[in-house]
Amino acid sequence: MQNFVFQNPTKIIFGKGTEQRVGEQVKERGEKVLFHYGGGSIKKYGLYDRVVDSLEEAGVDFLELGGVQPNPRLSLIKEGIELCREEGVDFILAVGGGSVIDSAKAIAVGLPYEGNVWDFYSTEKEVEEAAPLGAVLTIPAAGSESSPSSVVTKEEGEYKRAISSELIRPRFAILNPEVTFTLPDYQTVCGAADIMAHVMERYFTKEEEVGFTDRLCEATMKTLIKNVPRVLRDPEDYGARAQIMWASTVAHNDLLGTGREEDWASHAIEHEISGIYDVAHGAGLAVVFPAWMKYVYEQDVARFAQFAERVWGVETDFFSLEETALRGVRELEDFFQEVGLPTRLEDMDVGEEKLEEMASKCTEDGPVGNFAELEESDVLEIYRMAV
Amino acid sequence: MQNFVFQNPTKIIFGKGTEQRVGEQVKERGEKVLFHYGGGSIKKYGLYDRVVDSLEEAGVDFLELGGVQPNPRLSLIKEGIELCREEGVDFILAVGGGSVIDSAKAIAVGLPYEGNVWDFYSTEKEVEEAAPLGAVLTIPAAGSESSPSSVVTKEEGEYKRAISSELIRPRFAILNPEVTFTLPDYQTVCGAADIMAHVMERYFTKEEEVGFTDRLCEATMKTLIKNVPRVLRDPEDYGARAQIMWASTVAHNDLLGTGREEDWASHAIEHEISGIYDVAHGAGLAVVFPAWMKYVYEQDVARFAQFAERVWGVETDFFSLEETALRGVRELEDFFQEVGLPTRLEDMDVGEEKLEEMASKCTEDGPVGNFAELEESDVLEIYRMAV
Repeated sequence: MQNFVFQNPTKIIFGKGTEQRVGEQVKERGEKVLFHYGGGSIKKYGLYDRVVDSLEEAGVDFLELGGVQPNPRLSLIKEGIELCREEGVDFILAVGGGSVIDSAKAIAVGLPYEGNVWDFYSTEKEVEEAAPLGAVLTIPAAGSESSPSSVVTKEEGEYKRAISSELIRPRFAILNPEVTFTLPDYQTVCGAADIMAHVMERYFTKEEEVGFTDRLCEATMKTLIKNVPRVLRDPEDYGARAQIMWASTVAHNDLLGTGREEDWASHAIEHEISGIYDVAHGAGLAVVFPAWMKYVYEQDVARFAQFAERVWGVETDFFSLEETALRGVRELEDFFQEVGLPTRLEDMDVGEEKLEEMASKCTEDGPVGNFAELEESDVLEIYRMAV
Repeated sequence: MQNFVFQNPTKIIFGKGTEQRVGEQVKERGEKVLFHYGGGSIKKYGLYDRVVDSLEEAGVDFLELGGVQPNPRLSLIKEGIELCREEGVDFILAVGGGSVIDSAKAIAVGLPYEGNVWDFYSTEKEVEEAAPLGAVLTIPAAGSESSPSSVVTKEEGEYKRAISSELIRPRFAILNPEVTFTLPDYQTVCGAADIMAHVMERYFTKEEEVGFTDRLCEATMKTLIKNVPRVLRDPEDYGARAQIMWASTVAHNDLLGTGREEDWASHAIEHEISGIYDVAHGAGLAVVFPAWMKYVYEQDVARFAQFAERVWGVETDFFSLEETALRGVRELEDFFQEVGLPTRLEDMDVGEEKLEEMASKCTEDGPVGNFAELEESDVLEIYRMAV
C-alpha cells in the first residue's frame, strides 16, 4: 500500500426533499451567488422552482446562467466569468449533473485569474485561488459533487481536458434521489457506466496489499450491478435510486483510491471520442473499457480473475485463471449491453476515420495509464479493438 | 435508506514515516500546544522522540502531559484542563490510542467551559465550543482519530460515558502502520474486536435498502478477518498492519452508517463491564457481541444469514436460514477465540456478582439499542448468556 493523504470535507446532504436546504447552505457561504444550470429538465420537473423558492426564502441575492451542455464548453464558462465579475459574485451554485458542476468549477477558477481560464486545463499551471461553490446534483455519474476535478471542452480544436485542485471541491452537495426519477433510461445507464469506470480506474492497479480498498471497490460495483436493472424496471424505485446515487459519490470521493496507484487510461482514451463526437462520456467509457481490458489483462491475470469472481460471480476456473479473467470482461460487456449501452464504436456511429488522430492527441503529452503505460500505438490498437 | 448528512473533514496522513509531519501539521494550527500521551510505550519504541524532534524542528511551543490510562480517567482530564488554562494552550496533540485521543477530546471540551467537564458526559448538555486537536495514532481500534466521539470514565461511581460533537473531530490524524509493529498481540486483537464491533453496530439494522453500506461493512469485516491472523504470525507485516489501520479508521468515520439506523446496544452493555472491571474494551466487546447476537438474531434471520454467508463464507442452508444465521455467530466466536480473545465473562475473571447492578446502570437512562430495544431484563439476560 502506498502512503497517502485523504481529506474530503464536502458536506453531503442526502435524501428526500433535501433540495429545500439549498438556500440555508448558500446563505452561510456567499453574499452574491451565481445559480448555474443546464437545459430545460430542471425547469420541466420543478427542481428549478424549488431551488429558487429555497434561495428566495433564505434571502439569497442571486443571478442565473443556464445553458450548460453535456461536455461543458469553454465559451459559456468565459461568459460566466465575465458575468460574475460584473455582478460581484462570490459563490457559485451548480444545479445539475457533472457537466454543470464542472462548468461551475471552471468559472470558480477563472473568476480570480486575470489570464485565460483554459491555461489551467491546457498546461500544468496550478490553481492558486478559486471562488467557493456548492452543488445540487441531478445525475449520479461524474462524482464531481465531491471531487476536486473538472473536465472542460474547448470548441476550437475539439480538446477535452481536466484539472484537479482541492480548491474546487464543492463545499456542500445536496443529493435527493427523487430528483433522478425522471432521468431518461439512457442517461441513467450512461451515468452508471461512468460510475463503474471511476471504480475500475482505481481497481486495476499493480499496487500490492490493497485488499481493503479492492473490497470497497467491489462493494461499489456490485451495488451498481444490482440496482441499475431495478431502476430500468421501475424508475421511481427510491431504494435503488438512492443506492446508485450514494455509490456514485463514494466511487469518486477519493476513498476507493487510497493507497493505490490509479490507472485513468480509459478516461483519457474516451475523452478523445466525446471531445470530437459529442457522445455521452459514459457511453464512450462503456465502449473503451472492455477494449482496454482485453488489451491489458495479461499483465495481471490474477487481478482480472478476482474481478470476475468477486464482482460478477464467475466461478473460478482454477486450471485457467485466464479463462476466468476473460469471462469477467465478457460479463461487463454483457451487463453494458443488457442495460442498453453501446460496447462498440459503431454502436455510437463513430467511424474509423479519426482513430489515428485521436490516438495521437490522446498521447500528445506522453503515454497514458499506470496499470499499463500506453503509447500512441497501444491507444490506436485499443480504438481498433473497439470498432 | 434514511436521509443523512455526512461530512468528515479530518485530514488523514497515512503511511511510513508520516509522524515526521506532525510538527508541520501542529504549527499550522496552534500557538501553544499540549502534547498528551499515555504510558511508556511511545518512549520505549522511539515514537516520543520522533514526535518531539518534529515539533521542535517546526518551532512548536509545547508542554507535556502523559499518564493517560486505558479507559481514560476524569481526574487526569481535569488536571489537563487546569494545566492548559495556566499555560494558555490553544491546540491539543494526542499521541496514542483511543484512550489518549478521547482524553484529549475531553480536555478540548473542558478548556473553554467554566463548569465541570463531566456535565457533558453525564447529561445531554451540548458542546458549544472546544479547542482544536490533532492525533498521532498508535493503536488501530477506537476510530477516535477521525470520529466525533469521546468516552471517559469517572472513577467515583465507576461510570463510563460518551459524548459526540463535530467540534471534537481531530483536524488531522497521522497513521503510520509501522508504529503498530510493537503492539503486543493482545492489544492488537482487542483493537480488532473493537473495529469489528464498530462495523457490526452499524451492520445490524432494520433499515431497508442499505445494500451498498451493507457491502462496505462486509468489505471492512473481511479485511480484519484476513489480516489479523497475518499480523499475529508476523507482527512486522506492513501490508497487513496497514490494511487493519486504515480499516479501523474507515470503520468509525461515519461512512458505514450513512442512511442506516445504528444499534450500539453492545457498546453500552460492554461499557458497564470495562467501567467496573478495567478489562480492555475490545475484549469486553468480544464477550458481549456473540451473546447479544444469540439474544436478538431471531428478529431478522435473513440479515444474520447474510452476515454468515458474506462475511464468514458460510454456505447458505436454504432450508434453514436460522441454522445459517447461527453458524455465522459461531464463526465470529471461533475467530475471536482463535486470535486469543475471551468470549465469556469468566475468561476475563468477571464473576456473576455484579450483573444485576450492571444491567440496571446500563439502562438507567432508558432502553439501549435500536435493532432491538433492550430493557434492563434483556440486558441482564445477555450478561447471563455471556457468563
